[in-house]
Amino acid sequence: MKKVSTLVAPKDFSPVEDAEAIKEACQGWGTDERAIISVLGHRNMFQRRLIRLAYEEVYHEDLIRQLQSELSGHFETAMCHWILDPADRDAVFANLALKKATPNHRVIVELASLKSPEELLAIRRAYKFRYRRSLEEDVAAHTSGDVRRILVALASAYRYDGDDIDKEMVKLEATILYDEIHSNSFNHEELIRILSTRSKVQLNSTFNHYRDIHGTSITKGLSGDPADEYLAGLRTAIRCIKEPKKYLAKVLRTAVNAVVTDEDALSRVILTCAEKDLAEIKELFFRRNSTSLEEAVANSTSGDFKNFLLTLLGSEDI
Amino acid sequence: MKKVSTLVAPKDFSPVEDAEAIKEACQGWGTDERAIISVLGHRNMFQRRLIRLAYEEVYHEDLIRQLQSELSGHFETAMCHWILDPADRDAVFANLALKKATPNHRVIVELASLKSPEELLAIRRAYKFRYRRSLEEDVAAHTSGDVRRILVALASAYRYDGDDIDKEMVKLEATILYDEIHSNSFNHEELIRILSTRSKVQLNSTFNHYRDIHGTSITKGLSGDPADEYLAGLRTAIRCIKEPKKYLAKVLRTAVNAVVTDEDALSRVILTCAEKDLAEIKELFFRRNSTSLEEAVANSTSGDFKNFLLTLLGSEDI
Repeated sequence: MKKVSTLVAPKDFSPVEDAEAIKEACQGWGTDERAIISVLGHRNMFQRRLIRLAYEEVYHEDLIRQLQSELSGHFETAMCHWILDPADRDAVFANLALKKATPNHRVIVELASLKSPEELLAIRRAYKFRYRRSLEEDVAAHTSGDVRRILVALASAYRYDGDDIDKEMVKLEATILYDEIHSNSFNHEELIRILSTRSKVQLNSTFNHYRDIHGTSITKGLSGDPADEYLAGLRTAIRCIKEPKKYLAKVLRTAVNAVVTDEDALSRVILTCAEKDLAEIKELFFRRNSTSLEEAVANSTSGDFKNFLLTLLGSEDI
Repeated sequence: MKKVSTLVAPKDFSPVEDAEAIKEACQGWGTDERAIISVLGHRNMFQRRLIRLAYEEVYHEDLIRQLQSELSGHFETAMCHWILDPADRDAVFANLALKKATPNHRVIVELASLKSPEELLAIRRAYKFRYRRSLEEDVAAHTSGDVRRILVALASAYRYDGDDIDKEMVKLEATILYDEIHSNSFNHEELIRILSTRSKVQLNSTFNHYRDIHGTSITKGLSGDPADEYLAGLRTAIRCIKEPKKYLAKVLRTAVNAVVTDEDALSRVILTCAEKDLAEIKELFFRRNSTSLEEAVANSTSGDFKNFLLTLLGSEDI
């Protein structure tokens, strides 16, 4: 079987010894960031959770607070995010995206469209626990107009996730989508309904049928002014549902190729996928860019942040 | 403490003996409906669940299937619904409401607005399990136009359910609501956003402030053609959030006072509340109608259906 995760974590480990190693790295003159990376950059989610508990138990101090006071910059942010459980971390990503002066809609679309229904639900639960408001409440309050319609619908979804495909519905809805997109009725009531409620399996079948019948992809019909956040949101959602890994490889490509590296996007994708399917995403990245993701990351980042990301990418020597 | 439930169930019971009693009532010439009511009409949710399991175990037959073949009419429907777990039963109510030639929007609004966020989530989960589609998917597919906007938003909600109230937001949103309702902009984007995402505690505070400032309730501003399903949906949602028990008492009143008794609504409310807060609803019913709910039910129903409902209402002798 293909190795899909890139994280290198030992089977045996001791939460207390790890907590002690981190404490030691934090003490004395300066912080030993390499030591911290060499521990936490090689522990999976359950291990990190136990280390955080052990740290609390032994030092009566929250590991994340400790690291926040010792580390800085993008490295601090990434390391603190890394320690969180995935759903909680995604809730933080969502909140950071919404709190920006110009909310980052893309992050919301990604979270809502890439995750499984149960994962999205866990994010909504974590969001409520952390922020004492619901995710869709904040999405609705921080956005407006058409883009709000699509974001709220996607963020509120709790799709069916079985494998059943209703073939009659595929045909029917492919036609509905075509008609709505080509009538220039930019209200898109049906498109939003279908995109935000149907199961992903059903949607992919509908997208395929659309392409078979009309000879063009559905996203083509939704292209337009690149600054149109609404159309961009629709296209992103469709891409996330159609080809999630290819989409993520593209996010990484855009992040490293930007004039100023988009560290947030870079670490968001790497942290999220390191324990899941980052190996496949790396492959897709290489196939499209003729450069390995490690090389691209090494060229566009620096210092501890670079070392940390490369560790998560599975690099052996940093 | 006030007794809130009306169901009379013994502490001690034997699932197997109950299963045997039901089997006996089903055998021979004719069915002994009274015997079935005297058992199942006096068992709480956990007890019914165990009886169903015991029945399956002893007779290799599903209790609900058995009852479906023995009973008939509204009594059959009510008894079979009664045996289901609450979330599963509500999923059935939602599906029945949506499948009608003219979907019963009120049931969807009720389910989405009366339940706690976790209860609504359990219904959505049960719906997916039972129908292999999501609740909001079916709501969206069976409705259209403005009423769809409000139903889908309410059915997809997963509100924050803590007690925090943001007082600045109360003032701000009371003004937004007033402006939107009185500008005759019947698009109501903000109204739907606020109503479907804010916590119920927050909403009630906003409704109160609205009344304090404007001297009129928010539902008044939303009155109009009684046949307008969209405005009716908004008013129902607001009433369910403001005064759930009073709302349910009203549903019962309307059901028994109709020219043809609305058995569906009657049994939906009684089955749903018998183990929860039916005693309080009975009190509200009596205060408003100067007739006890038992009397009203007895006068508007008959036969086993009547006996069953009266049993759930806590009547001692039938």
